[in-house]
Amino acid sequence: MAVTIPDAHKDLVEGAVYAVLTTVAPNGQPENTVIWCSWDGEHVLVNTADGRRKADNIKRNPRVALTAVDPQNPFRWVDIRGVVESVEEDDDFSNINKHCFIYTGNEEYYGSVQPAEMKGQEKRLVFNIKPERVLVFPPPGQN
Amino acid sequence: MAVTIPDAHKDLVEGAVYAVLTTVAPNGQPENTVIWCSWDGEHVLVNTADGRRKADNIKRNPRVALTAVDPQNPFRWVDIRGVVESVEEDDDFSNINKHCFIYTGNEEYYGSVQPAEMKGQEKRLVFNIKPERVLVFPPPGQN
Repeated sequence: MAVTIPDAHKDLVEGAVYAVLTTVAPNGQPENTVIWCSWDGEHVLVNTADGRRKADNIKRNPRVALTAVDPQNPFRWVDIRGVVESVEEDDDFSNINKHCFIYTGNEEYYGSVQPAEMKGQEKRLVFNIKPERVLVFPPPGQN
Repeated sequence: MAVTIPDAHKDLVEGAVYAVLTTVAPNGQPENTVIWCSWDGEHVLVNTADGRRKADNIKRNPRVALTAVDPQNPFRWVDIRGVVESVEEDDDFSNINKHCFIYTGNEEYYGSVQPAEMKGQEKRLVFNIKPERVLVFPPPGQN
């Protein structure tokens, strides 16, 4: 049975909640980044530029963690452990634009969050994170 | 020169901000926990009960990450990479009570957050985390 995210906590990965993504460097040092994410029903999606440390780290160790805390209520959070099952190139910018819209309301990432002239200057990658263990607080049924 | 936390971001580790602590399990899986912390001028202090996974993980790999995002403003955060330099037993509960006061206003952890009868039933440990690299947003001087 696929590990999934309880309905009562899906907003934390589907909405405009800034989450912490953890990757592990080759020396065993965990490295966190504050990121945008979304949920496709089976994976948490995180978009990054190729060449960043987190992209390098997951090539060697695909195990990641992702934690999203409700900014309105620190006692409501989702904590995911999983693996980056695949990395896709976001060559038409559809994923980064989707994330941009969720988090900022702007439909185009380049020209709003990033300068328009950076479009095409960096390769965008989508990490498809498959949850292997999901903890939520409050526990399901105790909302 | 010791790596420290810029003054403009100290409130994120000194105040009542719930942070994410990352430890790494022996199989390379990063594991996050939403935690209380404080800052003693050189270390971030995190209190846990002995026997929890994070206590076991750091015995094998003392490298950790700790990220605190301002719940009022996701563009203000501190992200620390470091090592657990030492682990002390909190035998008089002074550290857990201090953290309890910062986060809840209650001076006694047992009897407020935890049932009074749990006092002495678990060994409390303090992780002294020495920062080795600190990133903040916005960058210092751009607040």
